[in-house]
Amino acid sequence: MKVGIIGSTGYAGAEIVRILLNHPEAEIVWYGSRSYVDKKFASIFGNMVKLVDNVCMGENISELAKMADVIFTATPQGLCASLVSEEVLSETKVIDLSADFRIKDVSVYEDWYGITHAAPGYIEEAVYGLCEINRDKVKNARLIANPGCYPTCSFLSIYPLAKEGIIDMSTLIIDAKSGTSGAGRGAKVNNLYCEVNENIKAYGVASHRHTPEIEEQLSYASGENVVINFTPHLVPMNRGILITSYASLKKDVSEDEIREIYNEYYKDEYFVRVLDKGLCPETRWVEGSNFVDVNVKVDPRTNRVIMMGAMDNLVKGAAGQAVQNMNIMFGLEENTGLKMVPMFP
Amino acid sequence: MKVGIIGSTGYAGAEIVRILLNHPEAEIVWYGSRSYVDKKFASIFGNMVKLVDNVCMGENISELAKMADVIFTATPQGLCASLVSEEVLSETKVIDLSADFRIKDVSVYEDWYGITHAAPGYIEEAVYGLCEINRDKVKNARLIANPGCYPTCSFLSIYPLAKEGIIDMSTLIIDAKSGTSGAGRGAKVNNLYCEVNENIKAYGVASHRHTPEIEEQLSYASGENVVINFTPHLVPMNRGILITSYASLKKDVSEDEIREIYNEYYKDEYFVRVLDKGLCPETRWVEGSNFVDVNVKVDPRTNRVIMMGAMDNLVKGAAGQAVQNMNIMFGLEENTGLKMVPMFP
Amino acid sequence: MKVGIIGSTGYAGAEIVRILLNHPEAEIVWYGSRSYVDKKFASIFGNMVKLVDNVCMGENISELAKMADVIFTATPQGLCASLVSEEVLSETKVIDLSADFRIKDVSVYEDWYGITHAAPGYIEEAVYGLCEINRDKVKNARLIANPGCYPTCSFLSIYPLAKEGIIDMSTLIIDAKSGTSGAGRGAKVNNLYCEVNENIKAYGVASHRHTPEIEEQLSYASGENVVINFTPHLVPMNRGILITSYASLKKDVSEDEIREIYNEYYKDEYFVRVLDKGLCPETRWVEGSNFVDVNVKVDPRTNRVIMMGAMDNLVKGAAGQAVQNMNIMFGLEENTGLKMVPMFP
Amino acid sequence: MKVGIIGSTGYAGAEIVRILLNHPEAEIVWYGSRSYVDKKFASIFGNMVKLVDNVCMGENISELAKMADVIFTATPQGLCASLVSEEVLSETKVIDLSADFRIKDVSVYEDWYGITHAAPGYIEEAVYGLCEINRDKVKNARLIANPGCYPTCSFLSIYPLAKEGIIDMSTLIIDAKSGTSGAGRGAKVNNLYCEVNENIKAYGVASHRHTPEIEEQLSYASGENVVINFTPHLVPMNRGILITSYASLKKDVSEDEIREIYNEYYKDEYFVRVLDKGLCPETRWVEGSNFVDVNVKVDPRTNRVIMMGAMDNLVKGAAGQAVQNMNIMFGLEENTGLKMVPMFP
Repeated sequence: MKVGIIGSTGYAGAEIVRILLNHPEAEIVWYGSRSYVDKKFASIFGNMVKLVDNVCMGENISELAKMADVIFTATPQGLCASLVSEEVLSETKVIDLSADFRIKDVSVYEDWYGITHAAPGYIEEAVYGLCEINRDKVKNARLIANPGCYPTCSFLSIYPLAKEGIIDMSTLIIDAKSGTSGAGRGAKVNNLYCEVNENIKAYGVASHRHTPEIEEQLSYASGENVVINFTPHLVPMNRGILITSYASLKKDVSEDEIREIYNEYYKDEYFVRVLDKGLCPETRWVEGSNFVDVNVKVDPRTNRVIMMGAMDNLVKGAAGQAVQNMNIMFGLEENTGLKMVPMFP
Repeated sequence: MKVGIIGSTGYAGAEIVRILLNHPEAEIVWYGSRSYVDKKFASIFGNMVKLVDNVCMGENISELAKMADVIFTATPQGLCASLVSEEVLSETKVIDLSADFRIKDVSVYEDWYGITHAAPGYIEEAVYGLCEINRDKVKNARLIANPGCYPTCSFLSIYPLAKEGIIDMSTLIIDAKSGTSGAGRGAKVNNLYCEVNENIKAYGVASHRHTPEIEEQLSYASGENVVINFTPHLVPMNRGILITSYASLKKDVSEDEIREIYNEYYKDEYFVRVLDKGLCPETRWVEGSNFVDVNVKVDPRTNRVIMMGAMDNLVKGAAGQAVQNMNIMFGLEENTGLKMVPMFP
Repeated sequence: MKVGIIGSTGYAGAEIVRILLNHPEAEIVWYGSRSYVDKKFASIFGNMVKLVDNVCMGENISELAKMADVIFTATPQGLCASLVSEEVLSETKVIDLSADFRIKDVSVYEDWYGITHAAPGYIEEAVYGLCEINRDKVKNARLIANPGCYPTCSFLSIYPLAKEGIIDMSTLIIDAKSGTSGAGRGAKVNNLYCEVNENIKAYGVASHRHTPEIEEQLSYASGENVVINFTPHLVPMNRGILITSYASLKKDVSEDEIREIYNEYYKDEYFVRVLDKGLCPETRWVEGSNFVDVNVKVDPRTNRVIMMGAMDNLVKGAAGQAVQNMNIMFGLEENTGLKMVPMFP
Repeated sequence: MKVGIIGSTGYAGAEIVRILLNHPEAEIVWYGSRSYVDKKFASIFGNMVKLVDNVCMGENISELAKMADVIFTATPQGLCASLVSEEVLSETKVIDLSADFRIKDVSVYEDWYGITHAAPGYIEEAVYGLCEINRDKVKNARLIANPGCYPTCSFLSIYPLAKEGIIDMSTLIIDAKSGTSGAGRGAKVNNLYCEVNENIKAYGVASHRHTPEIEEQLSYASGENVVINFTPHLVPMNRGILITSYASLKKDVSEDEIREIYNEYYKDEYFVRVLDKGLCPETRWVEGSNFVDVNVKVDPRTNRVIMMGAMDNLVKGAAGQAVQNMNIMFGLEENTGLKMVPMFP
């Protein structure tokens, strides 16, 4: 399998490289990077010295489409939409790590992202690549909308209860925390070491772009029109997303019964780990891996359930899930090249 | 003013020392520490070299009560309750940083803390030292229950809306994040550098001991019996608490109107800063100081208000508020010795 | 005393603000910042909300010179040199935190900094403001070259042995480690959180600009032409500099005798703390303060002495020492407004 | 290959587990842990949930020796020496990650470690498992003394110049920096998050136990009796060792010529990366991998060479090198199961 990466010098793009270097079936043939054309990839990511000899390439999508069996676009919003075309999709498959094709209602996309969609005609065709849910559709897709980091962790930790109609969706609140790699590699004062270190803050309160993506997927799961509060926070660490969600119970179920539902839903999922009773997911236990750890706690005092999930934002939240999608699209075992053991400490 | 500190070699106790060294009216006469009796205080806290020559003392409360005008107890739960007596309180004032006298209903205390209260007779007399609220009672108190870190930040960021009856208290959810100094200086594997660094986790979900303390105070404010969800998280940083709270609006008020209420409530408070519209409190902006930064965001999509607060857990959440209480008790300006400018970065 | 700060929105400039807000004799009348003209200072440094109401000003040096008794320039290399003039120095005093006036040989300056000096005529007059050494000259100076962070900590930890002729200066090697605030607040990829966190590296090996500054001062102390190796390292922390220096002993002296020399040299210095035998300086014990902690270890196996120093790079290494110089220039107690107790943790 | 690990619940032991789970030829049959007998390994290291089902075992060396083809001992000093015997070594191979068999002169070991060696009779037989140097001896060894973390990184970054007689060994100074996982998982106040974070310190100055190990190996390489200064520092990060070494040049060689020597020495070594001219090794580029990055800088002003190395202390400095030794002992490709790509950020 020949792979091209557009945007290989961002954190998510470079993580695709890290993963694919140990993938038995994939070979990277194109290290795309608008900012570093003609520079050695390993001069930008020093971890790749002696592992990657290639230089970075520009964005010649026609040439790349001919060379590659699959293209990953790990690029800013809008870029992938400007690249896809029948010509491209007839030659190769595209897995887009941006939000361009995640939201079915183009007006919602344009409202929240503040840009005009360049290829609305492909939104319908694109498959939302949350592998555990849409595995069958992914198999035959040409264009994958790889889910956002917050949505993946939020959704997988809430899904069984949304699907089973056990929680009152109108009470759902998602409080999320992310490591700083989620903010990307752009040179901004707010992301400097001294600004992030020894600090925690909420951001994008009641306005973060992942909100409609989460709402759409939870609406499919629950069969209702879901509107939520979603509050992300920036945490002084490199990697990791932690989700703490709250909802009122609609039915009289115990914590054990709820945990039984989770165990049933995820019993065949390699990448979802339902933790033992009483354990809270922690990002340190998933770092560097494609795992999502989930668990729940029922509070009888308030009749609420607290749903928790932990994940590596760059792996299951970006590059790892993208490779998982690739594996499905090409008929490989879903965890091929993705058995990285979480690295601790 | 002569000051004794019992438990001076914990993080909160040492922070009282840091603050009082620059307090114009206070002199520390007793550095109590069960673990380090006869050792130089500066040999345990190297920052105090050349500033503190004293050695640590044991727990002779009778002797100390005679020497000191005020005693701070920064000790594990139960210790202060075992020390107070009419003899002690007739000689000196006590400001207790533990939870022993914070909760009026002794059975609630004993349930959540799992210990038998050694001096229930003094609970009634003890004043809950949330200065901004109970200033008048503090003035004449002999025994202060210095509030917990999470309760202080939670309460001050929610209080105006609870008091005004603007939020539905039954919908209140508090999602809290704390730096690691809140876990104390005990040698535990879970608090080792490599266990905390690069990690975030929830803990004490639906069971944290600060829950009933927050509920009691919010019940007084709102006039209702408040039951909440409170979820603390451990963040890889030394200091700081961030509170993100959610509640449904009972009345039709705008964000501007709510901000107006906060500004009105806190207009004379030196230590509470209501941030400009749209700004989220961040712990970096209060580090080392006694400030609490608060702000709100209204989400018209869900009809909820998000209330946020940031504070240094060791200052306003412990030692600083204790000194603020001392100032009030002794008739000093409330911010005497407490004008530390937040240190950034 | 009316104070102007040019470059008040860098880390060093903002640290001058933090210190002076608690200085009993100083009032800041000018918050200069080329990048943020007309913006509220507290909108850039959120710690200053309710403490500083001023907006940032441009660089009208003539106007500022008339208003201010003293001007701090916390600006990039070359800027202060372009501002000083007889007109300015006849109206006000200037304390320059850049390197413009630190090196007496202008050709050395121009070689290492790669810029042409705009005001070489003032180099001779400028006093190198290492207070502990040049106190007397500082008193009457109009123009102070405030020492660099690495030079201050290096020099104070080595000075007694250089002065006493006890070490072979040709064997001196300085291995230095600094927190990230030393790299400034410029938006550069290399200073992003994810690039600095979980990393340590050497930089400027055999080429760092502080080398000639250290060499010049050690040459004065030792009476020899000193040439050294100086290697700085970037450490994932906000503040702090640690110096570990190595030199061969020329004389047969014991560790106790050497420590006696240090104690003698620094016995009247408020800001220099010679630690107890066997203790190594640590940056955590000086954070936020103007202290320098020093100590030595003699290794009889190699006949070398290891000289160590720890300091807060933004305080004694920049803003604190600048204020210390101001105090001397205006006849105040040297530690006025500088008695900040180190903050730990 | 059946593998037993004694001390599997320390950081180094758990890192062996992480690596071997992706090793195609190894199966772990014994998770030894004195502290956690009968507890599930995955309940102690949450990253291993769903990957390791085993419970921890005690220290029955006879039983283990029969089950395992190779035993790793990742245990405190002295333990391995107390376990080895002819009975054990006739049944299995032992790779000891402690220092028990690293130093050939038992009196030097006993002096620096302060314990009596329990099995001095096996010191002669034990092979010092620095793979790049002693590969041939490792092949047939029964007992491997796996090198220390600091010695591995120090030695590999200095070796070519020591071997070639280019540096004056009497001038060699090694200034080392390590992440905190090197301090182990014991519950000690000094290793708590708040004590390590925002701090750097030297420790074990002129007395660290790795000193004689480095000296012995450099003595073999140079043919001289080497005595050095070695100063380790503790850095607030989880993983990584950085070495900055200084020595005077004995010969008139340029930086290019020296780099040529390094390239020649390491041209066939998979795990040693000689960086491009001018680049300084950084720990972030090797994290999680078995690579050692090295480079040199010549300073003509002082006629010294600065030799630098970066490495993951838990991988090439412990578990990775142990597995590398295992691969050699069992005739596998040396990098089998060790092709982990460094994880960044």
